Amino acid sequence: MTTPPVTVIGNPVSPYVRKILAICAMKGIEVAIDPITPFRGDDAFSAISPLRRIPVWIEDGVTLCDSSIIAQYIEDTRPQPSILPADPKDRARARWIEEYADTRLFDVLGWKLFFQIAIKPRILKEPMDRDAVEHAKAVEIPETFDYLETLMPTEGYLFGASPGLADFSLAPAFLNARVVGTEIDAARWPKLAVWLNRVETDTPMKRLNAVALAFMTTRLADQPAVMAEHGYILAERSHDGGRAMRGPMSPV
Amino acid sequence: MTTPPVTVIGNPVSPYVRKILAICAMKGIEVAIDPITPFRGDDAFSAISPLRRIPVWIEDGVTLCDSSIIAQYIEDTRPQPSILPADPKDRARARWIEEYADTRLFDVLGWKLFFQIAIKPRILKEPMDRDAVEHAKAVEIPETFDYLETLMPTEGYLFGASPGLADFSLAPAFLNARVVGTEIDAARWPKLAVWLNRVETDTPMKRLNAVALAFMTTRLADQPAVMAEHGYILAERSHDGGRAMRGPMSPV
Repeated sequence: MTTPPVTVIGNPVSPYVRKILAICAMKGIEVAIDPITPFRGDDAFSAISPLRRIPVWIEDGVTLCDSSIIAQYIEDTRPQPSILPADPKDRARARWIEEYADTRLFDVLGWKLFFQIAIKPRILKEPMDRDAVEHAKAVEIPETFDYLETLMPTEGYLFGASPGLADFSLAPAFLNARVVGTEIDAARWPKLAVWLNRVETDTPMKRLNAVALAFMTTRLADQPAVMAEHGYILAERSHDGGRAMRGPMSPV
Repeated sequence: MTTPPVTVIGNPVSPYVRKILAICAMKGIEVAIDPITPFRGDDAFSAISPLRRIPVWIEDGVTLCDSSIIAQYIEDTRPQPSILPADPKDRARARWIEEYADTRLFDVLGWKLFFQIAIKPRILKEPMDRDAVEHAKAVEIPETFDYLETLMPTEGYLFGASPGLADFSLAPAFLNARVVGTEIDAARWPKLAVWLNRVETDTPMKRLNAVALAFMTTRLADQPAVMAEHGYILAERSHDGGRAMRGPMSPV
């Protein structure tokens, strides 16, 4: 087996990493994955990712950071099948949904739920901010879901019959919310619930979410083996020290 | 005089607004500007900009938010002269510099200096966070400038002889820092200082910075007239209520 020419550094527990890996799967791009430990990373990692974000894309000696920029780079260099609609205004709308997912949706589902409930007490050994969790559940999540419901299609994906950037940006964080007890109320947000089920069932996100779930109950040392068991190609591990990272799952 | 087909909502005090207006100037795109009051905005504004960000781009009844998405939309629809380099890896690097400017650089020069020193006490009538200001000056700004110095060209602009997205994204926030007393130490960061002077002297940023400076010493009611005096076309004002905005100058 030859090593793929692209390495992706990033743990699939991160929605941003799953976004990029779903795009790769859709475009048939083989990558080697280094599932770096979330919230840790040494100075070598800082050098290649100045804002300590994942995923990182390495190809031909060039290192790219930020999942939005990586997604656009993939689209620029491997345009078929496209992850963006053809009309420029629709392309802008798709990129806006990506931006909303990366900042607002991940802020409430990621930082205020998953990070507070699952990461702070268990990984970082710090208390969770219960007020932030309750405020997210009572106010911010309903506001966010109300807005997303207005964007949802009645069939297919956000921009037609095939999934694309907007779908793969928006869907992953819902898994992180679900594992800490927050699901979409399908009676209140029916189109959102149906769309999410479609992305999680009928696209490459299905296998990626399965890996992410498995990672959450697997010791760090065993995570690479889990990745391999799910059929992914492992890269050499090289940027995985013991120092807490400032923001590897921050908006990217 | 006919009204231009594009309206930009946004106050030029915002670096994100100046980024977009500089791109318009470079490409020869006429726009009508609604210089919305910073940090205020009514519910009608929330409806068109869900994250209450400026600038907002309105064209043919379509509303686009987020300066990065607007910039890419402008490039998609008016490709000449291009604001992005031709090579896909260089394009990704230019977009990375934009992302770094919009998040990290504006976090330290905008939120931790300009917002704390100039906006909180004077506009919002709240005390500044002196610790945040001191930490930014002692630690974060030097770190940020050290990184930017490594990106700087020895001549011309970041990606060649013409300014582009990366230059127009990175340059504006330095004005906001300067008006609250922080300048680039040219002995320590010589390439950064020379590059900034070039963007501020030889590109459309010169006129935009002049407007921004004038705005900072002009009463809100008189700001539109200042815009017109500098040769910009005013749009109808329509989204300017009295409620404090949550984040109109947040990364966009």
